[in-house]
Amino acid sequence: MTPQRPDVGNAGLNLRLSPEWIVGFIDGEGCFHIGISKHSDMKIGFQILPELTVVQHQRDIDLLYELRSTMNCGVVRRNHGDRFCWRVRNLKNLSEVIIPFFNKYPLRSKKNLEYLKFRKVVLMMQKGEHLTKDGFQQILKIASEMNRAKPKVESDLRESPSQDENSGNR
Amino acid sequence: MTPQRPDVGNAGLNLRLSPEWIVGFIDGEGCFHIGISKHSDMKIGFQILPELTVVQHQRDIDLLYELRSTMNCGVVRRNHGDRFCWRVRNLKNLSEVIIPFFNKYPLRSKKNLEYLKFRKVVLMMQKGEHLTKDGFQQILKIASEMNRAKPKVESDLRESPSQDENSGNR
Repeated sequence: MTPQRPDVGNAGLNLRLSPEWIVGFIDGEGCFHIGISKHSDMKIGFQILPELTVVQHQRDIDLLYELRSTMNCGVVRRNHGDRFCWRVRNLKNLSEVIIPFFNKYPLRSKKNLEYLKFRKVVLMMQKGEHLTKDGFQQILKIASEMNRAKPKVESDLRESPSQDENSGNR
Repeated sequence: MTPQRPDVGNAGLNLRLSPEWIVGFIDGEGCFHIGISKHSDMKIGFQILPELTVVQHQRDIDLLYELRSTMNCGVVRRNHGDRFCWRVRNLKNLSEVIIPFFNKYPLRSKKNLEYLKFRKVVLMMQKGEHLTKDGFQQILKIASEMNRAKPKVESDLRESPSQDENSGNR
């Protein structure tokens, strides 16, 4: 069951997320990921799915909504069990909100290296370079270099996961 | 092998941890914990060990040193394997640095509830209340209510772990 959220917004929560707090929180809890999965509808035969996610226990779902509200993009969804995530997949939001934000307020941890690879892929996709064979191969290489992404990329190339959640975000 | 740290401090790292970043990072990665273990040297027969820890992969050890440097307390130690932690156990540092900091810059996540319980225990210990039977029982109750602390408290009451790391920090 998805916890209900009151219609009154965040009045009274007083969370007031500053850019610096968001950077610190993403340094700790954020995940920049490039998913690559087979997709027959796509010109290149694969779908490239860059996403920023923050997973939290259900008790902090209001914090995820506050992240969505402050950054003005993304969705809050159940991740698994009692875990929920704030997730940004929309390419326009990634390139026009997320990337300018982390360019202005850089991550302090080594996660910044993941962000820089992530940014490169998003910018390539904006130019349509992922639709060329060379561009796709380059993105595949970048994704395979990103932490925790290697096994995901390989398994995604063997199976096609459900895309339903993505479609709701674009 | 503990990674060597250059003697030149953080010149060039330019990490510049702001209070807001630190709060966001601790909201994500910090752990407020009350350890309770048998200790024959202690008046009450148990040692109460409040600690704030932040565990990171070795690649972000500089960030842990920067936390230590910015907060001007605690130690950086190997946690296990390729994980390191910044840890504050010293009661004076907890009461004079950590607590005033999080009073001034409150945590935004539900971790703040853990912090408030943690603060209560530290303030009780400052007044020596943990040395009375009633005070100790009260602290035991608070510790058992804190997340992830319940099994630890119970197992600590049956066995006495090594105290060597703690002694180096006081």
